[in-house]
Amino acid sequence: MAAVRRGNGHKSYFASSDDTKICVVMVGLPARGKSLIAGKAMRYLAWVGIPARVFNVGSYRRNNTPQPTATFFDPHNSEGEKMRRAAAEAAMSDMLRWFASGKGVVAILDATNSTRERRRWIYESCYAANVETLFVESICDEEDLIMNNILEVKTTSPDYKGQDPEVAALDFRNRIRNYEKVYETIDDNEKHFTYVKLINVGSTVIINQIKDYLSSRLVYYIQNLHIKPRSIWLSRHGESEYNLVGKIGGDSSISERGEAYARALPGLLKKSGVPPNTKIVIWTSTLRRTIQTARHLAAETGFEKLEWKALDELDSGVCDGLTYEDIAQKYPEDFAARDEDKYNYRYRGGESYRDVVIRLEPIIMELERSENVIIVTHQAVLRCIYAYFLNTPQEQSPWMEVPLHTLIKLTPRAYGTDEQRFKADIPAVSTWRAKGTSAKHQDYPTTEPKNEVPATSA
Amino acid sequence: MAAVRRGNGHKSYFASSDDTKICVVMVGLPARGKSLIAGKAMRYLAWVGIPARVFNVGSYRRNNTPQPTATFFDPHNSEGEKMRRAAAEAAMSDMLRWFASGKGVVAILDATNSTRERRRWIYESCYAANVETLFVESICDEEDLIMNNILEVKTTSPDYKGQDPEVAALDFRNRIRNYEKVYETIDDNEKHFTYVKLINVGSTVIINQIKDYLSSRLVYYIQNLHIKPRSIWLSRHGESEYNLVGKIGGDSSISERGEAYARALPGLLKKSGVPPNTKIVIWTSTLRRTIQTARHLAAETGFEKLEWKALDELDSGVCDGLTYEDIAQKYPEDFAARDEDKYNYRYRGGESYRDVVIRLEPIIMELERSENVIIVTHQAVLRCIYAYFLNTPQEQSPWMEVPLHTLIKLTPRAYGTDEQRFKADIPAVSTWRAKGTSAKHQDYPTTEPKNEVPATSA
Repeated sequence: MAAVRRGNGHKSYFASSDDTKICVVMVGLPARGKSLIAGKAMRYLAWVGIPARVFNVGSYRRNNTPQPTATFFDPHNSEGEKMRRAAAEAAMSDMLRWFASGKGVVAILDATNSTRERRRWIYESCYAANVETLFVESICDEEDLIMNNILEVKTTSPDYKGQDPEVAALDFRNRIRNYEKVYETIDDNEKHFTYVKLINVGSTVIINQIKDYLSSRLVYYIQNLHIKPRSIWLSRHGESEYNLVGKIGGDSSISERGEAYARALPGLLKKSGVPPNTKIVIWTSTLRRTIQTARHLAAETGFEKLEWKALDELDSGVCDGLTYEDIAQKYPEDFAARDEDKYNYRYRGGESYRDVVIRLEPIIMELERSENVIIVTHQAVLRCIYAYFLNTPQEQSPWMEVPLHTLIKLTPRAYGTDEQRFKADIPAVSTWRAKGTSAKHQDYPTTEPKNEVPATSA
Repeated sequence: MAAVRRGNGHKSYFASSDDTKICVVMVGLPARGKSLIAGKAMRYLAWVGIPARVFNVGSYRRNNTPQPTATFFDPHNSEGEKMRRAAAEAAMSDMLRWFASGKGVVAILDATNSTRERRRWIYESCYAANVETLFVESICDEEDLIMNNILEVKTTSPDYKGQDPEVAALDFRNRIRNYEKVYETIDDNEKHFTYVKLINVGSTVIINQIKDYLSSRLVYYIQNLHIKPRSIWLSRHGESEYNLVGKIGGDSSISERGEAYARALPGLLKKSGVPPNTKIVIWTSTLRRTIQTARHLAAETGFEKLEWKALDELDSGVCDGLTYEDIAQKYPEDFAARDEDKYNYRYRGGESYRDVVIRLEPIIMELERSENVIIVTHQAVLRCIYAYFLNTPQEQSPWMEVPLHTLIKLTPRAYGTDEQRFKADIPAVSTWRAKGTSAKHQDYPTTEPKNEVPATSA
């Protein structure tokens, strides 16, 4: 390959037209998972490189009314009605300013937007600003789901901060009753709108008048979401023969210490906390070192196993099989360019992190549909998957440290993802390289297993 | 890259589980585009490597009743009812045999399946054979669409072969009336079924209880289909500097003759037949030679232009920048292996045709959503896109001849795709290599433009 290919992949991968702007308008009674959907959609869009932002009307309202009681939401309370209207207008005007600045592609307007009149106002305001609207209504009539939502999320809402959870839950149910009085579902009167209705967490989905590609992708993403409790475990392969000599890429086998990690993996998984009778699916790449690493786990548990080519390591093109020292020497300019912008740098004849994210997109879609999954993959791929769940900015994710012989447990929550790391007591080389150095792979010391280090990102 | 990577990419790309078997059950009155959807879904599945087959109940019925009149379909005609039932049973038993043989993954049962009772029978027969059902109902109340369908498709149906088209259309409308008498749309009584309802060609879509990944992909594909008339033009880039010296890959500029082709392209497109006021979108890869080839076309027409990384040429890995003679000499085993199974052969550190199909999948999705598009891309990529539209078998598509300086016009029809080729009167090297040879790129003679060579594939 004579030249580094230009990498404008992402924009044209998702956007049908350069100037599409979309306002995703959430619709639904309180406790229907609107904020959850809004947050996930924003994270997904950011991850695929589309500037997206949530405008939460509630947080505008809290500027003036930080802790309202249910009566504030009574449709006969004209003072409350006025203040809620003002909050919606403030959110709308900030949103339109954001679009006008040229920085925004998708805005998500997170509020109940529960009347036809309110929705018409949003549609017309957006239309005047050349912004398309996509209404996303979440409907739920399963009491269990609603109660879970009330207890898990709303009692931790800023509206009820410091209050008795039971009193808060009761007040919140009364607030819902007030919304129910005026709630109008999207119906045939609004059939010219582009909308999607999610009924009982996507068990039925109604899609109307989707026009552009980006909306179609987004709706496909949203319809794949579920809220069943589950965890996702991430691990790199055990130390490989190439790791030992500091070479990147290739398809080498795992080392003796890597084999020890493969044998330790079933125990490590158990230690991380797996509820009884949990079915976990094992995903690996198609490369030897991940398949070998998952071998004992599969044999001991009998879990289903899938090999994905999309989980193969970032392709380092002409640098495949070289050490970082070799690369610094043979391709000094490339080496510097990669340090400068590691996310976008594409190896000659190979891939960039941005490219890897594109090919991981179906993996993320399948992960959203799945329940418990353990993924045994490679450093760069793991960083990209991790970045999706923890909302890591693009410029940071390629530098994240993911040691060998460590199991990461991610547990999605309503507003973010819990993380725990479990280190196996098996030494391995370090493959982490700091920006601006070519040094890497010194042995790291055997330490006591460092477990239970919870971290939450919201 | 030390070893050729193993390529099991596809299966795990689409199938959540190795033993998923799905029966797609079409539902709808006659002339609602069921066979069109069935045919396209089958072609799409075959293209992504999933064994799929359509079982058309009408063709089973024709074994005994080749040319029935509308009265045959009268619900009070018990003889007709009996024979139609027998045809459905014959189709079902062939389908279950096909699944049992292990060859099938997705069967499409193409019939009206217009009563709840019939659908329950299908569901139960499949359930007993461990086959999942996905009901796809097409509903249409726009008279124009239905009439178009009646005139374009049904008067060419074997049921009316050799008959006066107007008499046939009248009889067919009466047949529809007979079906309408007993038609039951899928409703809340069937809410435990996995189904999708397409209302007026996907302008509204209702999706219910999708469980597995393959169904979710298939439904996403179906909901992106439209039936507006349009064409898709395919062209390779103009002759490149690399073409002149017989090298593959790289990112070279176009040659002088390539530039002449770029200048001729607007005229060639016009000559191919473009209805007045037609808006065409120009797609290129991110590589220089396609962007240069589309430059004058974009400038002269003002058409919107999109660059897609997914349209970049098949990555030839370590062979990038070599000639076929070099490859035969340097990597004789690989050279032979590629000839043996060109579709699956993955260049060391590069891609196979199978890999290219995976990354073209979103391109096909976007093409289905789009109207008129001209794609300027590369030999292998063009072969893959062409194979999708013309249903070319995997083992043939990598050997297809696609000369330089030739515009291919594809026009999708109800049952297949029309093809025309327009050759520019500008000489270029031939880049076609026959199986078992390393010879290629002799100059091909300047010939008179060879236009209007229609071909249809059904």
